[in-house]
Amino acid sequence: MTIVDVINKKRLGYELTKEELEYAFMGFYREEIPDYQMSSLLMAICLKGMNDREILDLTDIFIKSGEILDLSKIDGITVDKHSTGGVGDKTTLVIASIAASLGVKVPKMSGRGLGHTGGTIDKLESIPGFRVNLTEEEFINQLNTVGAAIISQTKDLAPLDKKVYALRDVTGTVESIPLIAVSIMSKKIASGADKIVIDVKVGNGALLKTEADAIEISRIMKIIGDKYNRDVETMITYMDIPLGIAIGNSLEILEVIKILKNEENNYLVSLCKALASKMVEISQGVSLEKASMMVDEVLKNGKAYEKFLEIIKAQGGDISQIKVSQNRQYVYSTKKGHITGMNAYAFGKLSLDLGGGRVTKEDKIDNTVGIILNKKVGDDVEVGDILCTLYLKEGSQPIQSDLTNFYTFEDKR
Amino acid sequence: MTIVDVINKKRLGYELTKEELEYAFMGFYREEIPDYQMSSLLMAICLKGMNDREILDLTDIFIKSGEILDLSKIDGITVDKHSTGGVGDKTTLVIASIAASLGVKVPKMSGRGLGHTGGTIDKLESIPGFRVNLTEEEFINQLNTVGAAIISQTKDLAPLDKKVYALRDVTGTVESIPLIAVSIMSKKIASGADKIVIDVKVGNGALLKTEADAIEISRIMKIIGDKYNRDVETMITYMDIPLGIAIGNSLEILEVIKILKNEENNYLVSLCKALASKMVEISQGVSLEKASMMVDEVLKNGKAYEKFLEIIKAQGGDISQIKVSQNRQYVYSTKKGHITGMNAYAFGKLSLDLGGGRVTKEDKIDNTVGIILNKKVGDDVEVGDILCTLYLKEGSQPIQSDLTNFYTFEDKR
Repeated sequence: MTIVDVINKKRLGYELTKEELEYAFMGFYREEIPDYQMSSLLMAICLKGMNDREILDLTDIFIKSGEILDLSKIDGITVDKHSTGGVGDKTTLVIASIAASLGVKVPKMSGRGLGHTGGTIDKLESIPGFRVNLTEEEFINQLNTVGAAIISQTKDLAPLDKKVYALRDVTGTVESIPLIAVSIMSKKIASGADKIVIDVKVGNGALLKTEADAIEISRIMKIIGDKYNRDVETMITYMDIPLGIAIGNSLEILEVIKILKNEENNYLVSLCKALASKMVEISQGVSLEKASMMVDEVLKNGKAYEKFLEIIKAQGGDISQIKVSQNRQYVYSTKKGHITGMNAYAFGKLSLDLGGGRVTKEDKIDNTVGIILNKKVGDDVEVGDILCTLYLKEGSQPIQSDLTNFYTFEDKR
Repeated sequence: MTIVDVINKKRLGYELTKEELEYAFMGFYREEIPDYQMSSLLMAICLKGMNDREILDLTDIFIKSGEILDLSKIDGITVDKHSTGGVGDKTTLVIASIAASLGVKVPKMSGRGLGHTGGTIDKLESIPGFRVNLTEEEFINQLNTVGAAIISQTKDLAPLDKKVYALRDVTGTVESIPLIAVSIMSKKIASGADKIVIDVKVGNGALLKTEADAIEISRIMKIIGDKYNRDVETMITYMDIPLGIAIGNSLEILEVIKILKNEENNYLVSLCKALASKMVEISQGVSLEKASMMVDEVLKNGKAYEKFLEIIKAQGGDISQIKVSQNRQYVYSTKKGHITGMNAYAFGKLSLDLGGGRVTKEDKIDNTVGIILNKKVGDDVEVGDILCTLYLKEGSQPIQSDLTNFYTFEDKR
């Protein structure tokens, strides 16, 4: 077997054996197979796909490249939650606080953002003092005392995924359903939770563009869960607009705080409630309806917010020190009408341009920059209304282009 | 523009602009774009294709990466000949000798072999003393005096192709019609000949597997020729069996000598005659029928062989010193029947295993090894007949597997 034979086989659309997948991917992991051969194989997989058998085998190879976390010392049923990502995704922080306040154990390993999608870990690091790197002992201890902990993925869980993802990110091979499923599920299985709730995002601002893709990845993630005796529940949620009103690390943490204080009521809030309810349902043995009522209650009585403060404190964070830029630009509408659409991708790119994301892995994120969306889909707008507010890097010049083009309007009748 | 945007665009099946192609390929040439991004783009091109406009633009980029040879100092019409390659292709040596003996100027730049396809330059180097590297002055001088010269591709002709081909070869991205066309035509245009005859090989042992592919690549090569005012003539020829009876560098040179001495009469000979006739027709202004008769004549009266000796002598070679291995293995048939097929690819691979090819660019070829095909398609075989003769590396052990499986048989009626 040579790696060129394996690449050619996939290019021609044939199924790869487990031995061939192992030879290629573990060879790459051990640096015996160079990047340029792996990236060509990854592109062939993107365009020719993999069947269920190949996906299950590749997930197994990813998992076995590292350790499997042992969460048996945690009292109660552990429920992990994952979102397939997108622009302005801050659900993790909200959901972990709500679910933990209702007795769910939420052991959460999160990633950093790359490209136009932000990562939960980056958002948390905008809270001065917050420690994203806990030892395994600290992590388990916090789960037993506080009920939730959100940390950066430790090195030893599916390390092959980290290496493959870094290459996919720079070679145009991110958007592959089998590869996304393998990447997510190998980390989730290795993370050790009893049950896993997956928020599968679909739409313009998400990795998955169509509902058919979202249904397909849900099916794949469930069969992977079955193999490892993990209960996998998926919820397909829409992402045609940026989630919530804030984009940018510090701005999003401030938004999370408002939601947990029950001061917001929008699609993001509904989504968080739905996901948290699902977690409560499957871990606490109550109906979804009952779970839903419990979630509403902890938002109203402040228990969810208290739990959030507990988590932040346990990990050393100080929310009073969160900083946002004072250099603001108000974007006025040059059109009049009813907003029917927003280009989430364009907003993600804009946030990147403002300094709120990474283009290369070495880039440093400016937590203080970002965007507040003053108008969203469904709003009526007059010429001169503020569409959004840009939080620019201190000392930098205003954006010149007409951002009204990020929105689609319909004439008001 | 980022390279990831360009890769994603092609992955999704969109047309790339000339600027995007230039950014990607010249960036790769200047080593600003790493191998792993180019290989992923190449795989996307393999699987999503390129339209005519993209192919013309990419060919132009390849050509302009280097110099265009000026052959105006050569008296007479220059005709270049190219074969899309395959197992045991030795047509170049035969055709150049025949055509030059009839007044055609044949300025031939050839390549080395990689994988299971051998290169003309490798075959020539099995002639002790033969110089494959001439200066431009020596090359033009030899064309004016002898009429033909066969040299290794000089560094400065479409150097981007060399770099891209080296990567394609190790990343499973060789078999792409647009990429094959760009690679061949950029070198042919840069090589400067007035007219170009292309032998497009199709079949099991060739790069192109179907006649439809051969017709498509012919169409593309003609439109590229049109753009640069070069007359491009293609002949689609079949390659389901190894061409001729010898595989291996020294063995093939000995076979060439037999053909030019008019001692052979098989499909390879017919093919060489047909291609040489085409070259005579388009350069000498005679009908194909007349050209064909002229070709027969120079084979019979020894002029073609004399021209071959002149070429070899002019480039310093000594055919009396050609060596073949004395360590031979006769392969006896374990079946009886009529041979209806031979696996050319398997023979190519076997030749590689014997030491007659390169797996990596650094590998040294053993010129003395190879295979003589004693039986070919159309022959009747009894159990115990010699199917083929292996010329093994001196001191190495015989091959154990039953090579009868390389052939398909039909029961004799």
